Amino acid sequence: MSAAGQRLTIRDVAARAGVSRAAVSLAFNNKPGVSETTRAHILRTAEVMGWEPNRSARARGSRGTGAGTGTVGLVIRRPARQLGLEPFYMDFISGIGSVLTERSGALLLRLVRDLDEEIELQRHWWRSGQIAGSVLVDLQRDDPRVPALAELGMPVIAVGHPSLTGPFTALWTDDGTAVTEAVRYLAALGHRSIAHVGGPAELGHSALRTEAFTAAMTELGLADARRRVTDYSGDDGARATRSLLASAARPTAIIYDNDLMAVAGLSVAAEMGLRVPSDVSLLAWDDSQLCRLTHPSLSAMSHDIHAFGAEVARAMYDVLGGERVTGRQVPTPSLTPRGSTGPPPPP
Amino acid sequence: MSAAGQRLTIRDVAARAGVSRAAVSLAFNNKPGVSETTRAHILRTAEVMGWEPNRSARARGSRGTGAGTGTVGLVIRRPARQLGLEPFYMDFISGIGSVLTERSGALLLRLVRDLDEEIELQRHWWRSGQIAGSVLVDLQRDDPRVPALAELGMPVIAVGHPSLTGPFTALWTDDGTAVTEAVRYLAALGHRSIAHVGGPAELGHSALRTEAFTAAMTELGLADARRRVTDYSGDDGARATRSLLASAARPTAIIYDNDLMAVAGLSVAAEMGLRVPSDVSLLAWDDSQLCRLTHPSLSAMSHDIHAFGAEVARAMYDVLGGERVTGRQVPTPSLTPRGSTGPPPPP
Repeated sequence: MSAAGQRLTIRDVAARAGVSRAAVSLAFNNKPGVSETTRAHILRTAEVMGWEPNRSARARGSRGTGAGTGTVGLVIRRPARQLGLEPFYMDFISGIGSVLTERSGALLLRLVRDLDEEIELQRHWWRSGQIAGSVLVDLQRDDPRVPALAELGMPVIAVGHPSLTGPFTALWTDDGTAVTEAVRYLAALGHRSIAHVGGPAELGHSALRTEAFTAAMTELGLADARRRVTDYSGDDGARATRSLLASAARPTAIIYDNDLMAVAGLSVAAEMGLRVPSDVSLLAWDDSQLCRLTHPSLSAMSHDIHAFGAEVARAMYDVLGGERVTGRQVPTPSLTPRGSTGPPPPP
Repeated sequence: MSAAGQRLTIRDVAARAGVSRAAVSLAFNNKPGVSETTRAHILRTAEVMGWEPNRSARARGSRGTGAGTGTVGLVIRRPARQLGLEPFYMDFISGIGSVLTERSGALLLRLVRDLDEEIELQRHWWRSGQIAGSVLVDLQRDDPRVPALAELGMPVIAVGHPSLTGPFTALWTDDGTAVTEAVRYLAALGHRSIAHVGGPAELGHSALRTEAFTAAMTELGLADARRRVTDYSGDDGARATRSLLASAARPTAIIYDNDLMAVAGLSVAAEMGLRVPSDVSLLAWDDSQLCRLTHPSLSAMSHDIHAFGAEVARAMYDVLGGERVTGRQVPTPSLTPRGSTGPPPPP
């Protein structure tokens, strides 16, 4: 295979159709100046030859092809040692993709190591016209991407609480309310010692969930609120679980900030000879299909991540269409009880 | 946010730097005709203003931005009802991404429902200059994408056995040898009744694995070769496992064609009160991180999918660089025994 394949140009189409290049352009832009018969003839000729105009040059002046066709950028940060993407992103990308497909758009995806690399890349994508806009994920407090990308005037949908997203259209789930629901549910089952296995403090949604966890425990008068910080990987989830379950007074319930870590936690419990839920209750977050595939199946704070991704893509197209889109909260994760939660063991 | 943000043009940069547009172009193309001092001044001015040339128009004539910057297309088919992507694709995309990042390329991703939709989309991406080339996955026998895309002269890396990939550069794993190794291993443990939970027959690699499974069983004189066909989803894997384990003479070992289905199989065994591996042995395929997160951890036919994705991206850049790249076989999946395989129960 060679990359050199000769591409057809408007000149070839004009020659084959026996018209001027201007006529081809008028026909494709649906402008007056060519008869309907000629227009149909030109379009048919181009179709037969397999030529279509470069939308970028045609419609948007200096904007590149990506911008013209509604290509949306998505940059995911993750530590170099962490291979693969977590289940959340599989469902999220799939949801964005479902709407892009309807609109003939596409997702331009890149994995990066840090925020600086992301900012550089987003700038480059935008300035070289490769994207019409971008979706920002994993917002941090005082996220440097917000001022940097706002300066570009680039359309952005930011997935995060409005307190994190600056001038951008924000889409978020109410994680605070969901964490509170999770803690209250476990407390209602009789648990007094509840642990939280969360993400790094610099991530905005991790920080919000951690604060909500501590507040909910305090409100319920539960002093034994233990926390473990992870990088959201299954391995880190397993380590955090081992450390909690091996501690002198082990918690009787653990809330995980994603489902991959909860799956790992379930295995660690089995490995340590503890029964779930009679010895320890485990509660997952996100609820991808993994939670239904384990035994016992995992109770989880569920939300429809696929629908969330689709909503983000729809908001992006509204913005691109020139609408003024205010932020919106998507449905709050809600408790789906399955087999991994129950009353604590008798003291 | 508005999509209208005025973009800078080469004219703006020339005016600010006090030079002609031709001089800006010469400076950026590193061509003679401007002094080093002027060149540095122009580049600095552009940098300060945040302008960079549209590589497409500059370097490739009629080719779009995507082509100019090495954007690679990837289209994944999956049934509409199946949300999310399977773990294989998470690792594969991550591996492609790691190389694209080094080369400042990006992945243009779309999920589609069928082959016709994919062909239409690949054609459009190529003709409108959005991609420099594409990676084809899930090759079928007599895959209609092969002639359709070959006709375009588009650079393609096809992930599949050379018997499936026509004129394209093929990268593949030797699935036949791997299946044979899996069957021999289980037979050596003493298993006589081994089942295979595979994918749809129209997928080339599913068909190759199924043939190899049947051949290996026959070769070993094992008559009881049962097969179940799935869509690779966890739910279908659970159903297939239930049907096998509920049958009159249940198999003592099951080989799965991916790891999501093996995770589901493990849960079904637990749900039916069967111990793994003392009642039934389970062997997964692909070996994403999931296999290490279950209890018992899953024995698997392992390959480094991240490295596979990286190899595909490198082959793509070789092709784009004008090299003649012959197909290559990437390392054959090999057995990683863990806790889910052992001798069969006594008869």
